Amino acid sequence: VISSDIAALCESIVGAAHVRRDEPTRLAYGTDGTSYCAAPDLVVLPGRADEIAAIARLCTEHLVPLVPRGAGTGYSGGAVPAHGGILLSLERLNRIVELNQADLVAVVEPGVITSDLHAAVERVGLFYPPDPASLARSSIGGNIAENAGGPRAFKYGTTKQYVLGLEAVLPNGDAIRTGGRTVKNVAGYDLTDLIVGSEGTLAIVTRATLRLIPKPPETATVRAFFESVGSAARGVDRLLAARVLPAALELIDGASLAAVEWHLGGVALAPPGTAALLLIEVDGSLAAVAAEIGHVERACAEAGATRIDRARDAAEREELWRVRRELSPALKQIAPIKFNNDVVVPKGKIPELCAAVERIGRDHGVLVPTFGHAGDGNLHVNIMVEDTREARDRAASAERALFEEVIRLGGALTGEHGIGLTKAKYLGLQFSDVEIALMKRVKHAFDPAGILNPGKIFPAEDSDKSTPQRR
Amino acid sequence: VISSDIAALCESIVGAAHVRRDEPTRLAYGTDGTSYCAAPDLVVLPGRADEIAAIARLCTEHLVPLVPRGAGTGYSGGAVPAHGGILLSLERLNRIVELNQADLVAVVEPGVITSDLHAAVERVGLFYPPDPASLARSSIGGNIAENAGGPRAFKYGTTKQYVLGLEAVLPNGDAIRTGGRTVKNVAGYDLTDLIVGSEGTLAIVTRATLRLIPKPPETATVRAFFESVGSAARGVDRLLAARVLPAALELIDGASLAAVEWHLGGVALAPPGTAALLLIEVDGSLAAVAAEIGHVERACAEAGATRIDRARDAAEREELWRVRRELSPALKQIAPIKFNNDVVVPKGKIPELCAAVERIGRDHGVLVPTFGHAGDGNLHVNIMVEDTREARDRAASAERALFEEVIRLGGALTGEHGIGLTKAKYLGLQFSDVEIALMKRVKHAFDPAGILNPGKIFPAEDSDKSTPQRR
Repeated sequence: VISSDIAALCESIVGAAHVRRDEPTRLAYGTDGTSYCAAPDLVVLPGRADEIAAIARLCTEHLVPLVPRGAGTGYSGGAVPAHGGILLSLERLNRIVELNQADLVAVVEPGVITSDLHAAVERVGLFYPPDPASLARSSIGGNIAENAGGPRAFKYGTTKQYVLGLEAVLPNGDAIRTGGRTVKNVAGYDLTDLIVGSEGTLAIVTRATLRLIPKPPETATVRAFFESVGSAARGVDRLLAARVLPAALELIDGASLAAVEWHLGGVALAPPGTAALLLIEVDGSLAAVAAEIGHVERACAEAGATRIDRARDAAEREELWRVRRELSPALKQIAPIKFNNDVVVPKGKIPELCAAVERIGRDHGVLVPTFGHAGDGNLHVNIMVEDTREARDRAASAERALFEEVIRLGGALTGEHGIGLTKAKYLGLQFSDVEIALMKRVKHAFDPAGILNPGKIFPAEDSDKSTPQRR
Repeated sequence: VISSDIAALCESIVGAAHVRRDEPTRLAYGTDGTSYCAAPDLVVLPGRADEIAAIARLCTEHLVPLVPRGAGTGYSGGAVPAHGGILLSLERLNRIVELNQADLVAVVEPGVITSDLHAAVERVGLFYPPDPASLARSSIGGNIAENAGGPRAFKYGTTKQYVLGLEAVLPNGDAIRTGGRTVKNVAGYDLTDLIVGSEGTLAIVTRATLRLIPKPPETATVRAFFESVGSAARGVDRLLAARVLPAALELIDGASLAAVEWHLGGVALAPPGTAALLLIEVDGSLAAVAAEIGHVERACAEAGATRIDRARDAAEREELWRVRRELSPALKQIAPIKFNNDVVVPKGKIPELCAAVERIGRDHGVLVPTFGHAGDGNLHVNIMVEDTREARDRAASAERALFEEVIRLGGALTGEHGIGLTKAKYLGLQFSDVEIALMKRVKHAFDPAGILNPGKIFPAEDSDKSTPQRR
């Protein structure tokens, strides 16, 4: 617990109204999109970069843990203040500072909500592709911290490909600028790309310059049903062989589909025997879209699709996306706890991963609906569990088995959510001791005092404080 | 000068045939695409990653400078062994290890020549977009070290966007793997993106996993002439406003055009009064290309183009690109020395940069033909000089004035070539002391002994050895 002196110093920096110690606030800011919670000692809501610098300086001086937080929608406990200390909410830095059509950039503060940025740039015919599922609530700062992806990442890349430059505060309070407002920029080390995806452990982003592109004028959407994940994967291969690069290429497995059908009151969404569904979207000029969607349908038919639906207008397009959007609420009704794992495997290994997921579910007696981004090999493998100690233990061993399989297939523990708190203990499955030691030296280069978002990414050492518990 | 013992140890690692001490070899490997030369004490040509690890271990142990080298086509002295020591040529590691169509990846050794990779992946309908001008001679390892770009970077991004994973050797000989074979991967810090573009100062890449995409089936090319850089820039803005994202968008100024005309024996390539030429290429499906090239022509016409040529076949396309390809040999005939600066400014600042370049040329009495990638704001500003002390001094002050202007316009010192040796003294124009100190700590995290490619990126300190001279 930090002293009243520190609280008073924080108040002198950001104003008393923006420092909160009451328990409801501390608990509310101690959570994210996972079921983990750890209340911070203090919630501080700065309004400017220089206030953030002063708070950071204070924390380094007094060795107080400092945890930056965006909108709290993360799925790896990255914003949960595992070691207590000061929770730094960036919600008040929420301005779109500049939208420059000549330079094709937007300059934003970290608290801007992702969908607000989408709306602002699309109003002038521009496009910011990253589209994490949480975009209506997530903040750009959080997207940057986790290098957020989304369905469009297969064609357009993840957040990293759209961050041209950052203004950030180091843990000691020093302000830095990285990158700039150009796509090409090879002066010095690329600290921008190092900070993007560093889960708030290296620096606190106070402003970002984002790359925009012209908005593709047209979109077409197709949904295809398959009797096996293997034939869906063949469909994906065939459409890539036809040289189509879809803007979205989503796979939903039979268990996920069943959950949605049940959630929607027993309505049958798919032909009997459906084991996989592909949702495919192409975008570009009218002419390109017309040609490509034909290739998509042919590819699915050749791969053995049992039914193919094409949206004829925006309403039908919404209807096709409905299953995808209903997945999260549907899964929440199946079981109270969801171990949401966003593993990633090489694209060609998706059938093997899905077979392994089925086997792991059977072996551990857990339901594991799986869906995700087939083009990227990035699947959301949801281990559903009852809220009992025994069920959680089973889920935990299923999770470890999943990660071991993913690494065996040449994949990675996480494609979108980050390691954070929830996967820190598995880091050694993917990285050698030499690699982890190197990452720790990089962390030390930014944060020698070790105050910024401690307890994240790296497996806990003996000296670490106890980790927070699931709620 | 390093001892015979070290040479003998190197011979025991890679075999006597692959260690060279003769002066012609040392001089040949002491150069790159600049006019700088510094002979190494020893040239070592390893054949395997484990040999590289053993050489690195030896160098760290004996504090011998170790300089990795690809094909020596760099334009910033990055591979010039400024402090002597061992020059490690990676030319023997030149295998395309795997070309995996299911995963859409190629696994390559660093010595693979860029155009050989292009040919191999295009044979199976795939595409590796990065296309530095030197692609017929440059190596993938060098492209990775410098984060190479090229005309296609505006639409497709630079080398960084296509490197999914690396195998590398740290200066102490430890082998690491970074990233993997998936686009999405947010486990741990992104050391892949940190090593790409680090100019051979952090680690020695021994193998890279590269992302491939479907090859766009069609291409169309247009050339448009303008009476000012401003109207060419308006043409670029108009085609982006028409939501066209060209695969190439090259700008060539009047001075560069005049040089090519002179080089080709006085042939008139452009209408009288031409001050700028745009070379625009779109790619994608047949239908998309047909529609987009129409938008391109309209945009150029509306911006006041005095003539627009469209290629009707591959031969005509080659002819349109001819001016661009003849630029380098043409410039070489104007003056013996070329200060080749690949500065980058925000896209909207191109007219201002071109005006500044003209003014700087006038003020310093130097000819400054300029061309480059208009979509990226990445221009090659060539300060042409006679080989006299006085002319070089004038060119040096023109160069400094150029860099100051670029930074004032919100740009960066280098978009493609890197800082290397030639721009190290200017690093402080772009970065603060805090930022440079942070980069040095990152360097130290990888290379505590400071043996890997010393004298690059960072401005020389008093303790540094003397820097090499232009030839």
